[in-house]
Amino acid sequence: MNEIELIKKYFMQENSQRSDVMLGIGDDAAILRVPVDQDLVVTMDTLNAGIHFPENTTAFDIGYKAAMVNLSDLAAMGAQPAWATLSISLPEINEAWLAELSRGLFTALDKYDVELVGGDTNRGSLSVTLQLHGFVPKNKALLRSGAQVGDSIYVSGELGTAALALQAVQAKINLSNTELAEILPALNRPEAQVALGLALRDLASSCIDISDGLSKDLKHVLAKSGVGAIVELAQLPINPILTQHLPLLDCYCLAVSGGDDYQLCFTIPESRITELKQQLRGVAITPIGKIMAGSELLFRNAACEMVELAATGFQHF
Amino acid sequence: MNEIELIKKYFMQENSQRSDVMLGIGDDAAILRVPVDQDLVVTMDTLNAGIHFPENTTAFDIGYKAAMVNLSDLAAMGAQPAWATLSISLPEINEAWLAELSRGLFTALDKYDVELVGGDTNRGSLSVTLQLHGFVPKNKALLRSGAQVGDSIYVSGELGTAALALQAVQAKINLSNTELAEILPALNRPEAQVALGLALRDLASSCIDISDGLSKDLKHVLAKSGVGAIVELAQLPINPILTQHLPLLDCYCLAVSGGDDYQLCFTIPESRITELKQQLRGVAITPIGKIMAGSELLFRNAACEMVELAATGFQHF
Repeated sequence: MNEIELIKKYFMQENSQRSDVMLGIGDDAAILRVPVDQDLVVTMDTLNAGIHFPENTTAFDIGYKAAMVNLSDLAAMGAQPAWATLSISLPEINEAWLAELSRGLFTALDKYDVELVGGDTNRGSLSVTLQLHGFVPKNKALLRSGAQVGDSIYVSGELGTAALALQAVQAKINLSNTELAEILPALNRPEAQVALGLALRDLASSCIDISDGLSKDLKHVLAKSGVGAIVELAQLPINPILTQHLPLLDCYCLAVSGGDDYQLCFTIPESRITELKQQLRGVAITPIGKIMAGSELLFRNAACEMVELAATGFQHF
Repeated sequence: MNEIELIKKYFMQENSQRSDVMLGIGDDAAILRVPVDQDLVVTMDTLNAGIHFPENTTAFDIGYKAAMVNLSDLAAMGAQPAWATLSISLPEINEAWLAELSRGLFTALDKYDVELVGGDTNRGSLSVTLQLHGFVPKNKALLRSGAQVGDSIYVSGELGTAALALQAVQAKINLSNTELAEILPALNRPEAQVALGLALRDLASSCIDISDGLSKDLKHVLAKSGVGAIVELAQLPINPILTQHLPLLDCYCLAVSGGDDYQLCFTIPESRITELKQQLRGVAITPIGKIMAGSELLFRNAACEMVELAATGFQHF
């Protein structure tokens, strides 16, 4: 099997459903049409074996997660997903593995009507790079830079669950089978908050994807917005499995710096919360703190004491 | 140095010159504006150490080449380059190496006013993935599918020079220093034929980038266009250094299947050649054959004998 056969078999979809794809896979480049009233939003993320996923991660989960980590970045901008390009390097052609990677990738992309329009396949160490392209009405994107003093800080979903699952997979902590089964999807099958991102477009003052951990990513918002923040640790949405297995302070550390949480953190004036909740159906959001004057990120516990957390977040190097 | 500092130091340009970049590096995604009368053209290529370049290739050349191989794909579509995204994996942060990679990358991108708008940096085996984005007026892109019986087949530049340089670098053939210095840029500093691609928009019937070798890539044109072709081996633009060091048949094999030639192969009605040549300044193009009825790609030597060449082209696996 050469790369052309490989691409045809595993990465070309039978029917293109998108009328904005003028030319998809199969030429030197893809030709795409952005709606005239929309801006193009692009994001690119790489997953490397042993760095971004344990070596024993299934091919399905690698494909699925590669899509979701990028969809999460589009969600953070309030963008509607549209197209993907994929570069995959692997040591040798393994058809069973490729079939599963492809199935995981398209399972995720199909949820959002995203079409794979091009890319590259090569020999090399196992690595998956995906670029996602989406649309946002001109000048309507959610940025990191708009947080205002007094805004509430919210997060979606749960924090720290993926980090606990990684510890369990790496045998650093011992969970029951039932417990692991409950939290493993947070690590291997994260769900990007696309619908939430779209709902936030006209309501949130800033938004970020907290894939590197709440602490590290919220600091980006504070720096870009020129503000500070206080986060109430007792309000963090933490799965009870964490608190059953770890001291509370360790739970907080995982929640604010464990990373791999494909959730959104956004700031919003309190006056817009009712409107937001009316738009959201089944998306859990939790208020965790307030934007303050200054530039610091402070953490406060249930006893109203400031807490220092060893909160570095995911380091790319 | 963490990845934020790394990106700021080596990959963020001081001033964005492009008014169509609404938001560049520094948020979850970039925000870009495609002109309303243009289609978006995207291409993604990965360079892996030991596969796409010898391990001892300089960082400057890796950065430069990563840009040019992608620019070459845009050229093949007749697209005007605009933006780039970059994902780079490396085993550890090596600042001297990164500085040179960055310098090589921007030297190439700046030639075409391309702005780096986003990407990802990670730990992993040395690998550089670049996506380029360009524009083409709606429905004006050059495709592989328009070749007509009777059209002339042209190539730009020289064929086989990069493949000979690779053999020399790998000590498979012995060249003088003067000779190597003359042909090494074909391997390490290829120049994408962007101006030629733009000139061909309204003139060529099909176009392809022959980075995988003339034989393999021209076959894509024939398959997509439903035609055959005859190529005159004696007309192939081959550097005299090849013919001085290799038997003629070996020269032909390198020229048609050596790969790594970032040249364009295009088909054009003979009636449009004069117009094309008036537009081109200093771009060498050579007629090498004709589009025929049928589906075969035939090679004919100076004695008008059909020649079988062991012509596979670059295999990605």
